[in-house]
Amino acid sequence: MSNITITKTSELKKKYEDANKLVFGEMYTDYIFTMRYLPEKGWHDAQIKPYENISLNPASLVFHYGQEIFEGMKAYLSPNGEPLLFRPDENFKRMSSSAERLKMPKLDEKLALEGLCELLKLEKDWIPALEGTSLYIRPTMIAVDPYLGLKPSQEYLFFIIMSPVGAYYATGFNPVKIYVETKYVRAVPGGTGNVKAGGNYAASLLASSAAKDKGYSQVLWLDGIERKYIEEVGAMNIFFRFNDAVVTPELSGSILPGITRKSIIQLLKDDGYSVEERHISIQEVFDRAKKGELLEAFGTGTAAVVSPVGILNWNDEVIEINENKTGELTLKMFKHLTGIQTGQIDDKYGWSLKI
Amino acid sequence: MSNITITKTSELKKKYEDANKLVFGEMYTDYIFTMRYLPEKGWHDAQIKPYENISLNPASLVFHYGQEIFEGMKAYLSPNGEPLLFRPDENFKRMSSSAERLKMPKLDEKLALEGLCELLKLEKDWIPALEGTSLYIRPTMIAVDPYLGLKPSQEYLFFIIMSPVGAYYATGFNPVKIYVETKYVRAVPGGTGNVKAGGNYAASLLASSAAKDKGYSQVLWLDGIERKYIEEVGAMNIFFRFNDAVVTPELSGSILPGITRKSIIQLLKDDGYSVEERHISIQEVFDRAKKGELLEAFGTGTAAVVSPVGILNWNDEVIEINENKTGELTLKMFKHLTGIQTGQIDDKYGWSLKI
Repeated sequence: MSNITITKTSELKKKYEDANKLVFGEMYTDYIFTMRYLPEKGWHDAQIKPYENISLNPASLVFHYGQEIFEGMKAYLSPNGEPLLFRPDENFKRMSSSAERLKMPKLDEKLALEGLCELLKLEKDWIPALEGTSLYIRPTMIAVDPYLGLKPSQEYLFFIIMSPVGAYYATGFNPVKIYVETKYVRAVPGGTGNVKAGGNYAASLLASSAAKDKGYSQVLWLDGIERKYIEEVGAMNIFFRFNDAVVTPELSGSILPGITRKSIIQLLKDDGYSVEERHISIQEVFDRAKKGELLEAFGTGTAAVVSPVGILNWNDEVIEINENKTGELTLKMFKHLTGIQTGQIDDKYGWSLKI
Repeated sequence: MSNITITKTSELKKKYEDANKLVFGEMYTDYIFTMRYLPEKGWHDAQIKPYENISLNPASLVFHYGQEIFEGMKAYLSPNGEPLLFRPDENFKRMSSSAERLKMPKLDEKLALEGLCELLKLEKDWIPALEGTSLYIRPTMIAVDPYLGLKPSQEYLFFIIMSPVGAYYATGFNPVKIYVETKYVRAVPGGTGNVKAGGNYAASLLASSAAKDKGYSQVLWLDGIERKYIEEVGAMNIFFRFNDAVVTPELSGSILPGITRKSIIQLLKDDGYSVEERHISIQEVFDRAKKGELLEAFGTGTAAVVSPVGILNWNDEVIEINENKTGELTLKMFKHLTGIQTGQIDDKYGWSLKI
């Protein structure tokens, strides 16, 4: 804490009036945490200051070569009114992996977490208490050298901003319709699909917009090589509950290693479910659905936590899963995980960090 | 011109003193051209103003989801001292393709070119006249909505900045050493490899830095599916001159459709060379090199124009091309194209635009 300079604002923003009306990612809190990196100084100049614009030379690498990574986390209020973070160490660890892949400096994970905790103490009143709401946290690292040759930046800016949010999907906790993408590809092994690099998301916008135009919430990506195997959904990992096992794509090198994914696998195993991390072809999913062996499907991710999948469209063949209703296991996992996250269920895993 | 507001600066920057000492992309001119896009207004607010920082909300999409595209162009001084642009319409057309792939608005290509021409008139004194130097031009489009949900931005900023540059490679017009990348992948069909999206470049930094550490200038990318076929070099397309034909990878959907590439193909054909755009395996290149059939290799791109390739390393097998000397055809193409670009050779193609 001694390393973080805090500058208070004289005027706090007007907060949301009705937590029921919160949407995703449109309103920001009063402060921002920032720190800078230079090779000779390492991470330095850690500060919390009033939320403000970032001013950069238009030649800054982040605008041209996409050298930028981010994380997504959430803070909840415990029943006693204490801020809770969910496995923040995992997020900062993953951010360091993302940094390595994009030739950015390893994060000072300890200082980043310290900064986040200080920020949360200051902004506690921004954490909504209503069920389904939370304070979304966005750690970001960007390359700021004003240089047009293609090479890694020397200087970097790391910042954390926060936004009170409601449900990620406008539909709330209801089954989403997913469109299986066959034209565009998200990632291949050897690329950047297994890290949270900005470019992955830019590449996904065309397909997800086309899916939205057809009435679907998200796309389901297939592998970029054979275009057969299931990878992940736009902003989530995906699970299928068959008769005999719960199956999710293995981390093949082009799939994001979701922290919610990892936590759900743990919960499932501890609940006695057989969990398989393996190649799953889209053909298998459709075949087994037709045989009545596909009982449920759900996505997992920080933003939506657990999201039931009701409809899958693959080349205009449509399957309905569990009569387009939220499945029993999906609901159980959602309740169990959000229970831990909000401090309403005993956290025997030590996942929840009290601030 | 009536649509562009021009604000003059009262104090011009100090210009470079010695054009011989110019490096690539470190110094910027006095002005920036900017315009904005909103769905309801289209492209608007076109202005030329003193070069200044860009100030953005830290939640702006460009920092998180890499929704950003760019182009690279050069202005030269003709023997009469007039600024010359090389096929600028092709760059702005390609920028519109990039925009489409990243779900960004189509560029107002006419207004962008008009802005660039006005900018060049104002900044003519920045164009270096020395052989091998030019004024590098960087049109860029970034997504600026302050919104953390994953969706295309509504608002965009387009800007053009310029930088007087010397040779792209510190070695000047001399053969470069290229490392064939076998671990990392640049792009696959269905991805964004055929457009100038920031994320493509971020994804390339780890491999190119590792190659530099081994003493190589750039990496040569293989296809992401079979890892057999040649795609492109870090910042260039690539050509091989075999005994019987000049061969370059076909535009497969994951290769950047270079404007220099296209121009060189035209020059080669008009000079009577047989040019093949086709799949080329790295095995073929090494096999034919060993048989003495590989006479020359060169890269093409805006930054380096034409760059001889002297050494290729593939899994630590090394071939030397043309005794690591600049080949006769490579030199001829370089001289012909730069001759057209600088107005020293008659431009029967109408590629050169006088400002």
